Amino acid sequence: VLIALDAMGGDHAPSEIVAGAILARKERGVESALVGPASLIEKELARHGETPADWQIIHAASAIGMDEHPAQAVRTKRDSSINVAMELVKRGVASAFVSAGNTGAVMASALMTLGRIPGIERPALGTIAPYTERGILVLDVGANADVKPSYMVQFAQMGSIYAERVMGIRNPRVALLNIGSEDTKGSELAQDVFKRLSHAGVNFVGNVEGGDVHRDRADVIVTDGFTGNVAVKVTEGTADFIFRELRKSLTSKLHYKLAALVHARAIKNTLLRANDGAQSGMLDSIRGALGRKTG
Amino acid sequence: VLIALDAMGGDHAPSEIVAGAILARKERGVESALVGPASLIEKELARHGETPADWQIIHAASAIGMDEHPAQAVRTKRDSSINVAMELVKRGVASAFVSAGNTGAVMASALMTLGRIPGIERPALGTIAPYTERGILVLDVGANADVKPSYMVQFAQMGSIYAERVMGIRNPRVALLNIGSEDTKGSELAQDVFKRLSHAGVNFVGNVEGGDVHRDRADVIVTDGFTGNVAVKVTEGTADFIFRELRKSLTSKLHYKLAALVHARAIKNTLLRANDGAQSGMLDSIRGALGRKTG
Repeated sequence: VLIALDAMGGDHAPSEIVAGAILARKERGVESALVGPASLIEKELARHGETPADWQIIHAASAIGMDEHPAQAVRTKRDSSINVAMELVKRGVASAFVSAGNTGAVMASALMTLGRIPGIERPALGTIAPYTERGILVLDVGANADVKPSYMVQFAQMGSIYAERVMGIRNPRVALLNIGSEDTKGSELAQDVFKRLSHAGVNFVGNVEGGDVHRDRADVIVTDGFTGNVAVKVTEGTADFIFRELRKSLTSKLHYKLAALVHARAIKNTLLRANDGAQSGMLDSIRGALGRKTG
Repeated sequence: VLIALDAMGGDHAPSEIVAGAILARKERGVESALVGPASLIEKELARHGETPADWQIIHAASAIGMDEHPAQAVRTKRDSSINVAMELVKRGVASAFVSAGNTGAVMASALMTLGRIPGIERPALGTIAPYTERGILVLDVGANADVKPSYMVQFAQMGSIYAERVMGIRNPRVALLNIGSEDTKGSELAQDVFKRLSHAGVNFVGNVEGGDVHRDRADVIVTDGFTGNVAVKVTEGTADFIFRELRKSLTSKLHYKLAALVHARAIKNTLLRANDGAQSGMLDSIRGALGRKTG
């Protein structure tokens, strides 16, 4: 199995991406094809003590920035690392593509290059909330601001398969994000989707509420891209707020500061455990807030 | 000014409510009319060392429970504390009504007894997020699962007046909760509301994202009741999750436990400061999580 890796995506690329590829090979035996400007990647590999000839490097002349308009950038920058990597997947050279870069551009490139699964009307963005050990898949978190009920049924079906095959959860519990737990609660859209999910071929366990994104009630939580995006960003904002307030209190007196030094290690342990097996925007935010406030 | 107080609303009512009324009189000179079963209230006042004759007690024979269907309970229990208190406001005896009880029933009773302000199509539920010193008003957080653009414009107008008159914020910044900061982002509904808010007679500062509920970007954040409800409950769930994880780490070794004892006081200070001037479901949850995990 070969993973196409966007060497140009994310903060501190390509340095951190190359470092990650080296770690993945050493610790997990995962082989990556590094996609990006070849000379840059070779230099990074050498800087990390690797022999470039031992690696699969796929040259891509340009990169799409985080602030570029996704669809437009994908159309005009044909030689970008995202487009080139996606081609590797299309041609069967790579089994999957991983990028820490412009999410919208990855989605646009996937749509244009790979197309959609037959019967699936719209793609969805998923994120993994780190509450349970294996994580909770939440989708859609932003690809579709407006949805039809049929899209959400398809999100449920895709999510269920992903949870089973990728996250290793048998017969995953699929729930609908709603504003009450009773069957008859919620918006017209939510009520319509609720009825459809009962015979959608998934293990539908009913409605969950916003707080259940961080509780063990479901393995897959289905929502529209507007609500899902707000949910993810509220999570990030709440984490920032709590750690800001805690930090103000914890550093307000000398003996609190001393105790905080003792705690810094414990807080880092929280992060390491939370990080094991789950990677998501939510987690990144919680980790970011902790790291910034205690590291 | 007399405040009608639902003596039967909330956890540990009437005991905690009566205790609160006594505190409000002592510390802030606020006069409350205690509404509920007279004999019960008199007993509680005596238990707190008060002379019942010094207090305005308005007898209401029954109470609406937290799990009762709001509209139905309001219609059938005419002698409930919520209905009786609302009548005091209607007749001008009380200037306002405060209840920690069944939110839906308070809203239903207000609609039936007081009616709506001319030109306002739907009521909204507001909550105050505790990020800034004076708080950020978020509305609607659950009264309207489905909205029309005109409702949201009215929420903005009501919210702006509330922020100015009640929260004491001059020329409050009103923002629309959306999934991107640019003008053209979001659902069709959000884009429509964005255009209308530019000439709605409020200080409209544009879109904010979910994380901005906990940042200093706006004083009033307008959203539909579905998204707003999810936002509030995600906040609660995130706070629970973070404190659960922190607690696991902080109590994992003896010297962490000792440091946590030192911190308990600092964490309580966080709560007291956060609580000053802002009361909301979000805050309650953060406080609840902290209290449970450290107190």
